[in-house]
Amino acid sequence: QNLRQYGIEIGVMETDSLNAITDVAGVKVGHRTIIKGDSIRTGVTAIRPHPGNIFQQKVPAAVYVGNGFGKLAGSTQIEELGNLETPIILTNTLSVPTAADALIDYTFQFRENRNVRSVNPVVGETNDGYLNDIRGRHVSKEHVLAAIKNAKSDSIKQGNVGAGTGTIAFGFKGGIGTASRKLPADMGGYTVGVLVQSNFGGVLQISGVPIGKELNKYYLSDRLNESPDGSCMIIVATDAPLAARNLERLAKRAVLGLAKTGGIASNGSGDYIIAFSTAKENRISHQSANRTQEKTILKNNALSPLFMAVNEATEEAIINSLFQAQTMSGRNGHTINELPVDSVLKLMGKYGRGSQ
Amino acid sequence: QNLRQYGIEIGVMETDSLNAITDVAGVKVGHRTIIKGDSIRTGVTAIRPHPGNIFQQKVPAAVYVGNGFGKLAGSTQIEELGNLETPIILTNTLSVPTAADALIDYTFQFRENRNVRSVNPVVGETNDGYLNDIRGRHVSKEHVLAAIKNAKSDSIKQGNVGAGTGTIAFGFKGGIGTASRKLPADMGGYTVGVLVQSNFGGVLQISGVPIGKELNKYYLSDRLNESPDGSCMIIVATDAPLAARNLERLAKRAVLGLAKTGGIASNGSGDYIIAFSTAKENRISHQSANRTQEKTILKNNALSPLFMAVNEATEEAIINSLFQAQTMSGRNGHTINELPVDSVLKLMGKYGRGSQ
Amino acid sequence: QNLRQYGIEIGVMETDSLNAITDVAGVKVGHRTIIKGDSIRTGVTAIRPHPGNIFQQKVPAAVYVGNGFGKLAGSTQIEELGNLETPIILTNTLSVPTAADALIDYTFQFRENRNVRSVNPVVGETNDGYLNDIRGRHVSKEHVLAAIKNAKSDSIKQGNVGAGTGTIAFGFKGGIGTASRKLPADMGGYTVGVLVQSNFGGVLQISGVPIGKELNKYYLSDRLNESPDGSCMIIVATDAPLAARNLERLAKRAVLGLAKTGGIASNGSGDYIIAFSTAKENRISHQSANRTQEKTILKNNALSPLFMAVNEATEEAIINSLFQAQTMSGRNGHTINELPVDSVLKLMGKYGRGSQ
Amino acid sequence: QNLRQYGIEIGVMETDSLNAITDVAGVKVGHRTIIKGDSIRTGVTAIRPHPGNIFQQKVPAAVYVGNGFGKLAGSTQIEELGNLETPIILTNTLSVPTAADALIDYTFQFRENRNVRSVNPVVGETNDGYLNDIRGRHVSKEHVLAAIKNAKSDSIKQGNVGAGTGTIAFGFKGGIGTASRKLPADMGGYTVGVLVQSNFGGVLQISGVPIGKELNKYYLSDRLNESPDGSCMIIVATDAPLAARNLERLAKRAVLGLAKTGGIASNGSGDYIIAFSTAKENRISHQSANRTQEKTILKNNALSPLFMAVNEATEEAIINSLFQAQTMSGRNGHTINELPVDSVLKLMGKYGRGSQ
Repeated sequence: QNLRQYGIEIGVMETDSLNAITDVAGVKVGHRTIIKGDSIRTGVTAIRPHPGNIFQQKVPAAVYVGNGFGKLAGSTQIEELGNLETPIILTNTLSVPTAADALIDYTFQFRENRNVRSVNPVVGETNDGYLNDIRGRHVSKEHVLAAIKNAKSDSIKQGNVGAGTGTIAFGFKGGIGTASRKLPADMGGYTVGVLVQSNFGGVLQISGVPIGKELNKYYLSDRLNESPDGSCMIIVATDAPLAARNLERLAKRAVLGLAKTGGIASNGSGDYIIAFSTAKENRISHQSANRTQEKTILKNNALSPLFMAVNEATEEAIINSLFQAQTMSGRNGHTINELPVDSVLKLMGKYGRGSQ
Repeated sequence: QNLRQYGIEIGVMETDSLNAITDVAGVKVGHRTIIKGDSIRTGVTAIRPHPGNIFQQKVPAAVYVGNGFGKLAGSTQIEELGNLETPIILTNTLSVPTAADALIDYTFQFRENRNVRSVNPVVGETNDGYLNDIRGRHVSKEHVLAAIKNAKSDSIKQGNVGAGTGTIAFGFKGGIGTASRKLPADMGGYTVGVLVQSNFGGVLQISGVPIGKELNKYYLSDRLNESPDGSCMIIVATDAPLAARNLERLAKRAVLGLAKTGGIASNGSGDYIIAFSTAKENRISHQSANRTQEKTILKNNALSPLFMAVNEATEEAIINSLFQAQTMSGRNGHTINELPVDSVLKLMGKYGRGSQ
Repeated sequence: QNLRQYGIEIGVMETDSLNAITDVAGVKVGHRTIIKGDSIRTGVTAIRPHPGNIFQQKVPAAVYVGNGFGKLAGSTQIEELGNLETPIILTNTLSVPTAADALIDYTFQFRENRNVRSVNPVVGETNDGYLNDIRGRHVSKEHVLAAIKNAKSDSIKQGNVGAGTGTIAFGFKGGIGTASRKLPADMGGYTVGVLVQSNFGGVLQISGVPIGKELNKYYLSDRLNESPDGSCMIIVATDAPLAARNLERLAKRAVLGLAKTGGIASNGSGDYIIAFSTAKENRISHQSANRTQEKTILKNNALSPLFMAVNEATEEAIINSLFQAQTMSGRNGHTINELPVDSVLKLMGKYGRGSQ
Repeated sequence: QNLRQYGIEIGVMETDSLNAITDVAGVKVGHRTIIKGDSIRTGVTAIRPHPGNIFQQKVPAAVYVGNGFGKLAGSTQIEELGNLETPIILTNTLSVPTAADALIDYTFQFRENRNVRSVNPVVGETNDGYLNDIRGRHVSKEHVLAAIKNAKSDSIKQGNVGAGTGTIAFGFKGGIGTASRKLPADMGGYTVGVLVQSNFGGVLQISGVPIGKELNKYYLSDRLNESPDGSCMIIVATDAPLAARNLERLAKRAVLGLAKTGGIASNGSGDYIIAFSTAKENRISHQSANRTQEKTILKNNALSPLFMAVNEATEEAIINSLFQAQTMSGRNGHTINELPVDSVLKLMGKYGRGSQ
């Protein structure tokens, strides 16, 4: 069940209709969950910035590296050129090469791309190796292509799905989470949507309530067992007309939302944010006769509401990933429990929150 | 009165003895507060990494730019060479040049520096122009030299002092704040100290309690009056033996603490973190016969407790700056109220915190 | 006399009419040379991106740090916001604070700026302390304001003028140099202009001819006397409609031109490039009613000719600074000889170049 | 035949004994050349920083992005942690995923790595799609493992081998090139070795002689045919005890050498430099009981000779790649001619160089 169905709110801004990254018009998300036998607990999540051929119609994009202990594919070209030319794939750490290869296959499937000889596949990851036989590299190119094909623009399955199938956050079962914010009309009415693959640690806070501390389950509470390592992949979409420079600034603000959940960006964390703008007028044609392009650009001083929006949506997406995930057993008999929602709700009540 | 005297705690780690940046051995802090007539409300705060001639014995250092709408002097040389060779001065935006010039004077005062012809003065700032006649540039070189001379290693005056004299945070009177954390002995027992000059906005949270929202005083609550702009200068000191690369990573984590106070790093914010290590064995002699230096370096995978320490200490230093500041009137009859501590404490109680 | 008057050409592209940064329409350059007594050999050079109030009509801009052993003021705000709001001042290392303060004065002189309380002064420097009594800080605010006032859009004095009065390059007298390139009409016909303050070392090459080696005057040829340290400030102007991201890429290419003169970007060098676009349609109004701005942006794949232009113009500007400088004596009886043009021309002839 | 055998020298410093990256003790290089039928012209080159298990004994490392239009795998983790934990693989653009996957296989082959669940494979590339059927992705994991296995510490095959099999530079056949420099004993006697995969354009210069211009084969000389796009991967090894921060500075100087060959770092270029130090005392154990490590670090002010060394060695390695490559025909009947050595030597003579 959803956080807001329990009466818990994050922040002060309005969500958009689905409270999901798919509130940004044109964005589609698809999952391919891979659960087999005792030890395969992994998967793939695909984010498509628009429904068309993204190689031919690239979108402005940026990457911000919160902490770079990770294997994100494709970052330097995004940074240099300021655009994204494939769907974004999330998967497990050791399946990044397979997913990157599958994105090349995907790109080559389009007839208009038949002469393309350079593709920049973008693949993020977190490490699900505690529950999943990650060394077995059980993700295939077919799984990746299926996730892209499955992508839809409506509400998104969260928790133990796709790339979140085997992930862990704050010692509980993590996974995929999403949320959105909509700016007031007189600030442009733009939507910011966030999707996370949560797999990190720290001292869990939910809407400011010290859940981790109350449950005595947090980094440094038990030094042997509670490594804060892991990672968080964060995808940010907006329909606001931002070019790469301001998308990078937007991406950077997602870290603020992560901080409010109690994440600490530990040494071993691979925390990356990829942000893109779907504004149609600013798409970048792969081929074009003109030397210049007319763009409509949001000014620097109109950005603060967007910064707050991504901050709030990231916080909520991470918390959603915890609320939606379920207890999972996997490799070597390991079990990771879901967030104990009843206890959490009681604590929320004790701390003056929610509908308790 | 101090936050902790009201029974409010931030985070899960222990503070060091003074709960101040001066808990890091050798660090000294000095203020020069400048209040004159109706409209001069500004000042200078100096942080000395060690009591000696810092030009001759530089310390490893790094800068992280949270948001670069600011005028920090000295950042590129710190980044390139990984060291700091002057005290750090904080003041108002338009007095950065004067303070930088004064740091050159200060450096030239040392006899051993008599042949020095290049100095990298490091000066941070926030804009106190709402309460202070900032265009008048009322800070003199003498003020700056006085702040350095005043520097002491014991407890630090907070709130409306030095560079915090005229600053504003979350719509309340801000100023100088400080806090510290000490790692458990079996994690090295290192100290991390933080000092902030708070002058920014967002949606105030104190230990997770939504104070800004409850007081209906937050960014977007009243779009005309509550600009989130402004800035936060954050100085981080540690005795852990970190070189520049890991000091930059440490600096970056201060932003997580800022986020937990409700800061949003708005477009107009100049949020800079300067971190340095006081570990004696790693100081960098300006002159030296040897080509190489033996260093003791903390390994990457021992950093996470330090990351959490700086996160918590930054959050607490910012909240301290609010608790310690007092209502101030200044330029054009402007008045900024202090945090209404009684109301805040009631709200803390309502949300299950503090000694209420 | 000019390089090209000796029949020496750099590169394969055409220069614009003045072969100077002032070929970019609207750009003005002014000098204030300060020579007094035996030991004052310094000055100020001002570059104005357009003739109007630049604070109110900012230009897109970027900074690239080749090597950051320098004291450039204003870099982080340019990087964050992508624009420049003051003229650029070049001077000596220890006069950066004075020049920054003068830029605040300059900005405040405009009636439209009467409510401005935040200014980002941009000041670059190199260290002229071998010939100049740099510790004396003989540059005053009046000198800086005079350089701005002197700025003209026609041909530029080079060599021992303004900020180049006391600088040294490759062991010879360096100084101010400038050059330009014009793209073919079918590539947009854009102009790229470069101005340098040369003060660095390495192994001098002129149009590929190993002058430094032939004259036995180069880094490592005589380890005691030929420090390669020093710095090069490089200002790049273009009328091509580039936003900050691509201006940074353009700035980065100036380093290639520096490399072709034999510069090595030594440890002690402060090599900074500031690039800005004068394209009127992309100026950024300080105040504006609209949230968005229509821009015309040159596409990534039209940039390579500009990259080559800045590369060639930087190489030529540095060589021009050497050809135009004259022997100078200064502090402590130090003398730095000018490039021995006759010997150089003979060597050029020996290596198949020039009109010999 | 070798450049120096023709009497042509680059720069002023001494080469080490092999004039190859393998002059750095412990470094090994292996090739796997893949030529099949009419259209497969590609391959793999592996660089091993030391002969042991590099995952268990990581080396300090850094990446510098000259221009990021490329698909380098592994960069963000190197930047964050400052180390390298796999051999470096070079191959073609679309085979990066395969090579990355093979590096995971390689790492898993070691018994001590049997519990490893996270590996950061480092793979660079350039695009050989003009001569090679790059869309066919003909590089297999076996090819990659063979290149690693083939790695030797003696002299290196250059030109059309390994990852250089199908590449093009300045319109001529490019490929693999290598060179080295040795510092004078009184500057530490360190070795710097460089290996390049040349595949880029511009205006070719050889030791300053304008070969491209003389042969009328350069960027902008014929706009339709001579795209400067393409890329250059540059690997820098040194036995000097540098940590990551100074390795990044060293890497950055390789671009200066590239510039001196006439490279322009065009928009479409993927120019990446990876630098590592082999100094045994600074290796980073994957597992270790101690929190701190004693290191010996070369000081900042001892770096300039290394900067000049990497500059010269890069220039020479690129020119070597051209001299060693041979005419190659491939995909679609395309033929790329080798550098016309006889004509080049004549031109070198005309311009006062070489033994002519």
